Amino acid sequence: MSGEWRVVTVAGVGLIGGSFALALRQAGFAGKIIGVSSPATIQAAFERGAIDEALPLAEAAAQSDVIYLAQPIAKILETLNVIDGAVRPGTLITDAGSTKRAIVQRARETIRRGRFVGGHPMAGKEARGVEAADASLFRTRPYVLTGSDAELERWIDKIGGRLVRLDADEHDRRVALVSHLPQLLSTALASLIADRPEAAKVAGPAAADLTRLARSPYDIWRDIFSTNAEEIDLVLRDAIARLQTLRENLQVDPEMQGIFARAAQAASQLRQS
Amino acid sequence: MSGEWRVVTVAGVGLIGGSFALALRQAGFAGKIIGVSSPATIQAAFERGAIDEALPLAEAAAQSDVIYLAQPIAKILETLNVIDGAVRPGTLITDAGSTKRAIVQRARETIRRGRFVGGHPMAGKEARGVEAADASLFRTRPYVLTGSDAELERWIDKIGGRLVRLDADEHDRRVALVSHLPQLLSTALASLIADRPEAAKVAGPAAADLTRLARSPYDIWRDIFSTNAEEIDLVLRDAIARLQTLRENLQVDPEMQGIFARAAQAASQLRQS
Repeated sequence: MSGEWRVVTVAGVGLIGGSFALALRQAGFAGKIIGVSSPATIQAAFERGAIDEALPLAEAAAQSDVIYLAQPIAKILETLNVIDGAVRPGTLITDAGSTKRAIVQRARETIRRGRFVGGHPMAGKEARGVEAADASLFRTRPYVLTGSDAELERWIDKIGGRLVRLDADEHDRRVALVSHLPQLLSTALASLIADRPEAAKVAGPAAADLTRLARSPYDIWRDIFSTNAEEIDLVLRDAIARLQTLRENLQVDPEMQGIFARAAQAASQLRQS
Repeated sequence: MSGEWRVVTVAGVGLIGGSFALALRQAGFAGKIIGVSSPATIQAAFERGAIDEALPLAEAAAQSDVIYLAQPIAKILETLNVIDGAVRPGTLITDAGSTKRAIVQRARETIRRGRFVGGHPMAGKEARGVEAADASLFRTRPYVLTGSDAELERWIDKIGGRLVRLDADEHDRRVALVSHLPQLLSTALASLIADRPEAAKVAGPAAADLTRLARSPYDIWRDIFSTNAEEIDLVLRDAIARLQTLRENLQVDPEMQGIFARAAQAASQLRQS
């Protein structure tokens, strides 16, 4: 079953789930969107016009063509433990979790009646919650899928995402470098500045740039660290080695020039892609 | 002599020098601004309305009340070797170099007729050159002085800078942490991404944030590394140790929670100050 979606359940109507619902609507989705969340979130989601109805998970699942899990990773893992008994055969279950290996593994163990395709939209912003949801959040951003589903891919395209198909291991390896390491570099820098508050008095735009991510709350990172520990360990090792190289060559002109040139090129390419 | 400025020379009419000239003008400076730069820069500076006149350094110095050195650090050091013979007694000489110890030391050795006060506006942007100059560049930004001069301080205030008085050693120690380390963290990350270009395909806003600085050209950093090597070595050592702590504690909840909390607080305070 990969037919046209009539009923979509969004479980976890926060920034990502709410944005997905608003994006679907703006892209012309004419069916029903059911929200599964806490009462406070449900109320905010109604106020944003993100959902048409609110139901407990099992009741929502029973009538949905697709179930979009936009919860924290630990909660997605729990939902995968219980959802399969509630869905109709062939129902698409997909998610928006920031790591994929643990989630895809869990789905492989638990999803029988439904069909699971892991997902990760590489989008976000500082503000959290459905209050900050934005129909354009996915526009021009990579949207990783660990499998295929024609209707899901059609909607990703319609909401402006750029489909990237990767297996879960490869996804987790790459995001360790481009998402998790940036967070840890930012946290490390900000924590060093915390030790020397007098230095903050001369901070300019460089420090502001590099510490923006450090404001991310730990509660979303706990799950990421516990589900991608191996890959994060490797990129931290590489980062430490690279900083050691910079330290040892700080005044070795050709070495530094080479590293700066390669870095500048990669940074520019990041902005073109 | 710390009287009202009638003639200001800006040596090096690039982003910072050009912005200082435009900011003075916008803040009501009614005297003459002389530019000292290469012919191409002088032409662009005239086109931007940043200068009234262009002269060789010695001729400009002979008629100026203040000489603002906004050249690369190595060039500032060279200018300090030759400027003193050209100025009238008591002429204020100040600079905008990114490190202060080497410059203040050189000025102590060479400036006799003039009076030197080291300066560093903690402002900048990606684009370079007088084409990108901006009268509001210094607004709300720290402006470090290594000494005092009433008229210079008055103009810093008028152009919106926030005066911070520091001796050269303390300045260099602080900027190693809040300016030079951010650059090196950004360059390290971008150079790791350069080694794994496939990862860039899933890069989101985090990677973009953290690699923006990595596009800075090496030519301005060479001088910074050679004039602040000791302090940069120390902050690189601290950063490596902090990343090692994060690596060893990645799944140790209370430790990580503590570091994230302190980092988030410092990052938020940076934005309030």
